[in-house]
Amino acid sequence: MDKLLYGVAYYDEYMPYERLEKDMEMMKAANINVIRIAESTWASEEPEDGVFDFTHVERALEASQKAGLSVIVGTPTYAIPPWLAAKHPEILAVTPRGKGKYGARQNMDITSPIYRFHAERVIRKLMECVQKYPHVIGFQLDNETKHYNTCGPNVQKMFAKYLRDKFGTVEAMNEAYGFNYWSNRVDSWENLPDPTGSINWSYVGEFSKFQRSLVDEYLAWQAKIVREYAREDQFITHNFDYEWRGYSYGVQPDVNHKLAAKCLTVAGCDIYHPTQDKLTGKEIAMGGALCRNLKQDNYLVIETEAQGHANWTPYDGQLRLHAFSHVASGANAVMYWHWHSIHNSFETYWKGLLSHDLQPNAPYREACTIGADFARLSHKLVNLKKKNRVGMLVSNEALTALSLWRFNYNDVMRWMFDTLYEMNIECDMLFPQDENFEDYDVLVVPALYSAPRELLERIRDFVKNGGELVTTFRTGFTDDNQKVYPEVQPAVLQDCLGIAYDEFTIPENVGIQSHVLSIPADQQQASLWMELVRAEDADVLAYYDHKFWGKYAAITENAFGEGHATYLATMTSAAALKAVFERVLKRAGVWGVEQQTKFPMIIKNAVNMDGKTVHFYFNYSRDDVEQVYLHADGVELISSDSVQNGDIMTFEPWGFKVIEEK
Amino acid sequence: MDKLLYGVAYYDEYMPYERLEKDMEMMKAANINVIRIAESTWASEEPEDGVFDFTHVERALEASQKAGLSVIVGTPTYAIPPWLAAKHPEILAVTPRGKGKYGARQNMDITSPIYRFHAERVIRKLMECVQKYPHVIGFQLDNETKHYNTCGPNVQKMFAKYLRDKFGTVEAMNEAYGFNYWSNRVDSWENLPDPTGSINWSYVGEFSKFQRSLVDEYLAWQAKIVREYAREDQFITHNFDYEWRGYSYGVQPDVNHKLAAKCLTVAGCDIYHPTQDKLTGKEIAMGGALCRNLKQDNYLVIETEAQGHANWTPYDGQLRLHAFSHVASGANAVMYWHWHSIHNSFETYWKGLLSHDLQPNAPYREACTIGADFARLSHKLVNLKKKNRVGMLVSNEALTALSLWRFNYNDVMRWMFDTLYEMNIECDMLFPQDENFEDYDVLVVPALYSAPRELLERIRDFVKNGGELVTTFRTGFTDDNQKVYPEVQPAVLQDCLGIAYDEFTIPENVGIQSHVLSIPADQQQASLWMELVRAEDADVLAYYDHKFWGKYAAITENAFGEGHATYLATMTSAAALKAVFERVLKRAGVWGVEQQTKFPMIIKNAVNMDGKTVHFYFNYSRDDVEQVYLHADGVELISSDSVQNGDIMTFEPWGFKVIEEK
Amino acid sequence: MDKLLYGVAYYDEYMPYERLEKDMEMMKAANINVIRIAESTWASEEPEDGVFDFTHVERALEASQKAGLSVIVGTPTYAIPPWLAAKHPEILAVTPRGKGKYGARQNMDITSPIYRFHAERVIRKLMECVQKYPHVIGFQLDNETKHYNTCGPNVQKMFAKYLRDKFGTVEAMNEAYGFNYWSNRVDSWENLPDPTGSINWSYVGEFSKFQRSLVDEYLAWQAKIVREYAREDQFITHNFDYEWRGYSYGVQPDVNHKLAAKCLTVAGCDIYHPTQDKLTGKEIAMGGALCRNLKQDNYLVIETEAQGHANWTPYDGQLRLHAFSHVASGANAVMYWHWHSIHNSFETYWKGLLSHDLQPNAPYREACTIGADFARLSHKLVNLKKKNRVGMLVSNEALTALSLWRFNYNDVMRWMFDTLYEMNIECDMLFPQDENFEDYDVLVVPALYSAPRELLERIRDFVKNGGELVTTFRTGFTDDNQKVYPEVQPAVLQDCLGIAYDEFTIPENVGIQSHVLSIPADQQQASLWMELVRAEDADVLAYYDHKFWGKYAAITENAFGEGHATYLATMTSAAALKAVFERVLKRAGVWGVEQQTKFPMIIKNAVNMDGKTVHFYFNYSRDDVEQVYLHADGVELISSDSVQNGDIMTFEPWGFKVIEEK
Repeated sequence: MDKLLYGVAYYDEYMPYERLEKDMEMMKAANINVIRIAESTWASEEPEDGVFDFTHVERALEASQKAGLSVIVGTPTYAIPPWLAAKHPEILAVTPRGKGKYGARQNMDITSPIYRFHAERVIRKLMECVQKYPHVIGFQLDNETKHYNTCGPNVQKMFAKYLRDKFGTVEAMNEAYGFNYWSNRVDSWENLPDPTGSINWSYVGEFSKFQRSLVDEYLAWQAKIVREYAREDQFITHNFDYEWRGYSYGVQPDVNHKLAAKCLTVAGCDIYHPTQDKLTGKEIAMGGALCRNLKQDNYLVIETEAQGHANWTPYDGQLRLHAFSHVASGANAVMYWHWHSIHNSFETYWKGLLSHDLQPNAPYREACTIGADFARLSHKLVNLKKKNRVGMLVSNEALTALSLWRFNYNDVMRWMFDTLYEMNIECDMLFPQDENFEDYDVLVVPALYSAPRELLERIRDFVKNGGELVTTFRTGFTDDNQKVYPEVQPAVLQDCLGIAYDEFTIPENVGIQSHVLSIPADQQQASLWMELVRAEDADVLAYYDHKFWGKYAAITENAFGEGHATYLATMTSAAALKAVFERVLKRAGVWGVEQQTKFPMIIKNAVNMDGKTVHFYFNYSRDDVEQVYLHADGVELISSDSVQNGDIMTFEPWGFKVIEEK
Repeated sequence: MDKLLYGVAYYDEYMPYERLEKDMEMMKAANINVIRIAESTWASEEPEDGVFDFTHVERALEASQKAGLSVIVGTPTYAIPPWLAAKHPEILAVTPRGKGKYGARQNMDITSPIYRFHAERVIRKLMECVQKYPHVIGFQLDNETKHYNTCGPNVQKMFAKYLRDKFGTVEAMNEAYGFNYWSNRVDSWENLPDPTGSINWSYVGEFSKFQRSLVDEYLAWQAKIVREYAREDQFITHNFDYEWRGYSYGVQPDVNHKLAAKCLTVAGCDIYHPTQDKLTGKEIAMGGALCRNLKQDNYLVIETEAQGHANWTPYDGQLRLHAFSHVASGANAVMYWHWHSIHNSFETYWKGLLSHDLQPNAPYREACTIGADFARLSHKLVNLKKKNRVGMLVSNEALTALSLWRFNYNDVMRWMFDTLYEMNIECDMLFPQDENFEDYDVLVVPALYSAPRELLERIRDFVKNGGELVTTFRTGFTDDNQKVYPEVQPAVLQDCLGIAYDEFTIPENVGIQSHVLSIPADQQQASLWMELVRAEDADVLAYYDHKFWGKYAAITENAFGEGHATYLATMTSAAALKAVFERVLKRAGVWGVEQQTKFPMIIKNAVNMDGKTVHFYFNYSRDDVEQVYLHADGVELISSDSVQNGDIMTFEPWGFKVIEEK
Repeated sequence: MDKLLYGVAYYDEYMPYERLEKDMEMMKAANINVIRIAESTWASEEPEDGVFDFTHVERALEASQKAGLSVIVGTPTYAIPPWLAAKHPEILAVTPRGKGKYGARQNMDITSPIYRFHAERVIRKLMECVQKYPHVIGFQLDNETKHYNTCGPNVQKMFAKYLRDKFGTVEAMNEAYGFNYWSNRVDSWENLPDPTGSINWSYVGEFSKFQRSLVDEYLAWQAKIVREYAREDQFITHNFDYEWRGYSYGVQPDVNHKLAAKCLTVAGCDIYHPTQDKLTGKEIAMGGALCRNLKQDNYLVIETEAQGHANWTPYDGQLRLHAFSHVASGANAVMYWHWHSIHNSFETYWKGLLSHDLQPNAPYREACTIGADFARLSHKLVNLKKKNRVGMLVSNEALTALSLWRFNYNDVMRWMFDTLYEMNIECDMLFPQDENFEDYDVLVVPALYSAPRELLERIRDFVKNGGELVTTFRTGFTDDNQKVYPEVQPAVLQDCLGIAYDEFTIPENVGIQSHVLSIPADQQQASLWMELVRAEDADVLAYYDHKFWGKYAAITENAFGEGHATYLATMTSAAALKAVFERVLKRAGVWGVEQQTKFPMIIKNAVNMDGKTVHFYFNYSRDDVEQVYLHADGVELISSDSVQNGDIMTFEPWGFKVIEEK
């Protein structure tokens, strides 16, 4: 990317009256330099079967070209037209709830050849239409693609093929999945039971994994089509989204982002998050770390909220804080969904930058200041590189497997991520597919419940070779088929961790007590899960505080090879986890000036294209804050003021500073 | 009506043993003067297809005639016989949950020609049977008719026709509904999507409105049949019910009562409400005001509880309080559902006046006193006229539109209605169809979220011409297609209200502060919704109390034309709303002696057929209460005691007095 | 039974690697003397249609024979193989939720002839296979059989036949069920409505009863087949389970255990219960009392937890406490489900005695001590007889009828049972089929809501003949068709109880007050239900404490014939109920030394085969406890220490002592 992108999704199609020139003018005034168009408007682009009308697309392209804006063109495929559903109702995905109804988006069977036929045709027509515009800088494939739980007979046939390829014989599958249990043993591929009725979590989990692979194939298929038309300088991206809890919460259960991103040239995502008094920047950091991993590079925030839901209406200053937080995480684009607020339908209350009256308003005025700063500082803030020493390994397989036991993986991941965030430790995310564990000093592994022996061995090697591992309860419990390792737990890692356990329970009125770690008296509870760990070689950092379980270890630490492995056998308070992290990070030498302060004062570091280090100081609080400048002398880029190490800086509520070292 | 009706639903069909003479005797003793029969007993009346047996109807008619009771005959059509469902299962309504099963009542497709054929036949047979009885005073069409969410293919065809008639072209519809959004644009009437799967609330809301219109047509169809047989002196009514929350709560979402009532000669309804310590009279007043509007006249309470559910078992005196509260609202009938308590099936615990042992019991003994009073005072209490100066405008369209956003319209309506009630301000209800806004001094308009420009202009004119308007958040936001007005909000009313806003949020820890209104410190919270209002011409009565939102107005008041318009941008406590109402009502001169007391002492006023003013004083509390008599000298009708202005009257728990001015 | 059985369910089929010899060795070492096999492994035994493979069964039989263990063989029929579901999908039960999917167990239509054909074939093959092994001591038919809510068209045809047999004419049925209500009157058997859509609880309740009868027939059918092969010395049992609330809670709604057990020679059940700090022994006592009734004899605990769910992981000592508590209730077998912890599928976290690592662990080591004690004390503890003087009458019909009103019968049953338990009053359970009410001094009858006149008359006679009855609200309200008795309530028992009521309500802020009973001030609340009882002949033990209901009785007592009848018109605290029971029990002379202590010190008594009385003292608490020995001098069997009356015995947390009188 050669500049910082500041943009909006724009829908000429949705406007209640002719607004195009006026909108371009207002964007221009705000230094908005890119719009995303065409995504999700198939019915406007192909109003009847085989009849194409790209009026709105061309209008937007012409007007934006004239206004000097860049454009990202999205393929419109994630919402099908009514005529297509009416003509081919079999396109609608069969899910465990039965056949879907037309109406919402993302309800089709993405494997349907009928769907593929029509999707390919409209993509090609669209690409032909937009090909001639030099200001189209890239393409977005579909949008927030998932498998929509498609599981009809055709999909189950594909699954049978997938299983045959994986196992060769039903006997091997029966063995791997323990299908003898409850008389589930399968005699032949044609009698494979419907996974949506199964109580065999190995089988069900495999089906989820298979469903995720459909997304990989689907996006690669679209990428191949788009690439036939795209210029060399045009990127291909996708707007990935995260586990949704009313906002972006964690690893996406229904897509393996790492695998799905293979067909892209640039990673993209949407990040939505609470605001007002609940604004913390955690989702911005977490989503950014996940997306930064996908191509090991900068990424695009293709959607984020301007006003969004009614309870997200931003306080003054918060839009600025959001935008610069994304940039500080390595985003090269901050784009609002969307320009205006829609006047009908489902997302009327997912408000854009403009309100329904389409007039300049408080968010727009604040956006103008962001646009101006982005334009002025683009060279200094684009393509920022992060050099983090802590990696966190996340796993779709563990997430799925635990979810079948109604245990939320992302809660554990966020407990660890958020705690590091509050300590001002920036971390990278890693997927099992990543080979570079050794690039990190500290590897944090939440609840890696389902993992092949090979992956656990790589973690073990990381420690052996001098790494610092922090892992938790439930790690190393089952293999990649969700078969419990029939050996002493934690499997494979047992010697590395120096512990053993075979019993576990749900803590009720259980605490932890430590002579090593300093944990406030009211922060000593154990929660969610507890393993009755026997420290065999390991040192015990904390025992359970309980009449009968007190003999078991809650937190252990083991020297193994050149490194150390720390184990949390239960979920602790953030305070206790901080004490553990502090111990580990200090030993690993990952303890810097940033640790002299903490949330709500958040510091992020990066190196810009000039090779200069840039420090972002963010005040994630409703109060005025004073903070000493902790880094080397530099210049605050917004104000152009010089800043010396030791200077006391004053921050407004939700204020921030960006200091480039000299 | 020439007398006050006191009655019960009576089912000879349900009796566990021969009781008819005994029951009539007991009714007579209680001065019960009317029974409702035949409703919901189709399978007894037509035990086999085409075989009719009106034995129970005739028995009840003969016995009641002999006993001197009047009869209301209900058509039996709201519960179909098993043979009909077995022979024509297509009669059962298809709803979004799929095909219904036989068993419950009100599960048929009211548009089904098969249903209509059979319903018409049994109605005609019944009418022929009852025609000869002079003591039949009226007919009830069906019972609590709604559309039962019928939405099968035949209904959707009717909806398509309805849309064609409304819009002419799909293009006009696409525009009105913003169907470009999420690729919902429709190319032709035959490809109209199923509204039950749609995420376009304009379309979904229109379907609800269409479904409500089915009820209008259905009742008119029945009325036409019944009228062929009815004598001039016989009324035609219906038993409307309200939004049900375990009791009658507010405007009925599935019927537009105003339109459905067009075919009736007298309005009727059922009103069920909490009792014991939760008895307030609010539902009696609210339901009465709604029903009184329908024919702009007195109405019948065709069903209300005697004992009802287990948690409604009345305290001594409460049955009397209920009965006279209905009369004081303008009811000409108070009828219990039902005479006895049923020994089998679904409503065994919806107890009647008699318990299952069918013996005189506490409620029966209390009913005897009511019957005696009604008989004695009938002339003075029948056809009471209300002259209220406050009107409250309610809207099915706003209700439906807000419900799609999971926002409960009736909560806002009840917040305003109940607050007025507690202040002893009686009010009338108005529907958008009513043309007589100018008859009122004060117009209260809760959350009129969906309204055509014309309606908003009528409200604006009301103020301009000297009226006092009190309206709230969300009024004037969308047109009648639920398209957000693309202008500064509140649309149309902006100059009248003298305010503007384009942002809103959900209040969390937000208060309101006022230098004008006196609001107790612990009653200053904002809740549910808050708009960030800029007072342009208006005076600010209260600002938000919040660090960042404090610059916006929470309550405003604007002089416009000859009148004033008050706006509540957030839901306040009842105390704050009372302060607003007090200010407005005093300015409007609607502030009388009744405002010297307040709930739980409730005062209702009316004028009787002798032209005399009658004052009802109700003690809605579990305690003995003393209350000064505030009105002109008169006679307490129950006791026949004289009462002078200024007298201190003593009320028992749940006691009341009825004073007719001299 | 000639010895105390200590066993496990064993699944060679589920083992992750060859373990058989090792497992037998470990069992032997633990004095485990019986395994249950074959149950639920149909797909392993018949991997393809008509192809049988009893390898795992034979391996387990051979190895156990060699190790000297006994075997219980279960028929595998409660989980069908995938090939069977694939070939005959019509086997899967149609329930109110529609057609089931293959995957889980217990999802077939147990009436299906296709299912019966295949089930019979595999049972016969299995029986042929196991016939030759002398150490097979018995057979278990199916497992936890229920009707699985099968209600497809074929089942409804059977129901029509059942109704024809019961009523003869539709008229009789219409009358009994009050089908006139809401037009449900049936004209002919072929138009019978689907009971799953009905709102007539009489009809719905009858369908439940009919569905329960399917289980009786099904088990009898299996018993007949098995009996063809079984030797005289081999028992036939079944593993009944109880109402499931995450653990065994009460009377099973879907089976009438008394009727279903007719085909068995020994009763069996599973009992699962909370542990850790929530371990009380109540479910052990309750489940035992119910099972002991079925054959009026000792019973087998065929399944209970070793480790079980994560929140059941036992504290040290708790496994011992469980085991001896079962024995003290009359169990001749204590068997864990299951030996090891399964490595795949649905019950991975329903852990067995061994954990997933299959190594000796804490529970196993504790089991070794139990096995040793059982082996040593077998003769003294097997076939223990109970002689209880209190009987509690439970009813499936009352349970079903109340459940239709969302009223939980078992909550009332447990309120009474648990209160007696805490008082150290052991009681027997009785079913309406039992004729021996007169064997008891005190009859406790919770909420006998639905009962034929004949049953109520037997209860009345029990009192008349000198018995002490304690019964509650809702008893005697409806007949066996759930028709409310149209007479003064409580029906039939009115003179016996000396009371009458016709009104009832849900208590809110209602207390009870008594000058007779001593009830702590904070234990006087009324809850759940309250009847407004007029004490006609009865003495009032407590009135309601309430401004308006205070004139009604909450607890009454009546002398009737030679006995007394006590009535609780509302649910009280346990403390109040204890006061009632104390009064009654003392009058009945059922007040012994056991009542000098109370929960958590639980005492159970029995007589062993030597005719000696054995006293079990259980410390159900997390604390050390001292307790005086209250009975005649004897020997503590575990320690072999002598114990004299009056000795102070010390109990560890969860400890116990077993004293055999001299």
